Amino acid sequence: MVETVKKAVQDYYPDDFSWCYGCGRLNEHGHHFRTGWNGEKTETMYAPRPEHTAVPGFVYGGLIASLVDCHGTGSASLALHRKNGHELDEGLEPPRFVTASLHVDYLKPTPEGTALKAIGTPEEIHPKKWAIHTEVYAGDTLCAKGKVVAAVMPDTFLKN
Amino acid sequence: MVETVKKAVQDYYPDDFSWCYGCGRLNEHGHHFRTGWNGEKTETMYAPRPEHTAVPGFVYGGLIASLVDCHGTGSASLALHRKNGHELDEGLEPPRFVTASLHVDYLKPTPEGTALKAIGTPEEIHPKKWAIHTEVYAGDTLCAKGKVVAAVMPDTFLKN
Repeated sequence: MVETVKKAVQDYYPDDFSWCYGCGRLNEHGHHFRTGWNGEKTETMYAPRPEHTAVPGFVYGGLIASLVDCHGTGSASLALHRKNGHELDEGLEPPRFVTASLHVDYLKPTPEGTALKAIGTPEEIHPKKWAIHTEVYAGDTLCAKGKVVAAVMPDTFLKN
Repeated sequence: MVETVKKAVQDYYPDDFSWCYGCGRLNEHGHHFRTGWNGEKTETMYAPRPEHTAVPGFVYGGLIASLVDCHGTGSASLALHRKNGHELDEGLEPPRFVTASLHVDYLKPTPEGTALKAIGTPEEIHPKKWAIHTEVYAGDTLCAKGKVVAAVMPDTFLKN
């Protein structure tokens, strides 16, 4: 049984921005990462699927990178929304971010069969950019550390 | 029609190490990234699937991170194998690497519907560690730059 985020920012993105393979609620093939507040930290929980293997017994690093990525943009959205004086559930769309850069340090092999939890600390580094410092745990074991620099989504991302 | 790598290091990994979601030939759900030499550079080609969306029209950053990751470990394997005096097809298993760290700078939104090509430059930084500097192109457009530090796989990764 995987612990879940009760109120996730991805549930409040407009439909047009909800197709992300990592965290879009409308992408039926995707991971459906969901990111919410836990006090001053953000968190995203995920149970890797059996095929998310690196070598048998351990989780694929690209999946962990994907988790850090979407957890980062979601956390930045939560953080800027809160900075603007809003919480989810107020009827205002949270701001949408894109990833400018992604860094992951793989500290230990991540065991399969254990739910992952990403815990993020948002840091404002520019009015339109946030750094999200993330730790990824498998159970009590810190397996990876990540940093995402997320930028407010530019209009050029709106194709139509 | 996606350009393909003729002789890929992943085709020569032993079966036990061929289950990776990113590059394992035996993982039926995975991406099957394949990495080979092109002169002194390494390359990996991949056509993202329709579900690998960030927002409609653009490719998911976590997929690009996954490409950079497996391209990095594959390139390190090719590079150390060559440094040891071997090429693929000699009957010797190439060395297997794990990712110590992964960094991706997303330079431009990556358009969907275009095959991606990762081009790598391997750099030895320690007898058991290589840095792989990677550029990811969609057609002629440089969309992302990445760096993987890959380490020779420790015995602890052998679960059985």
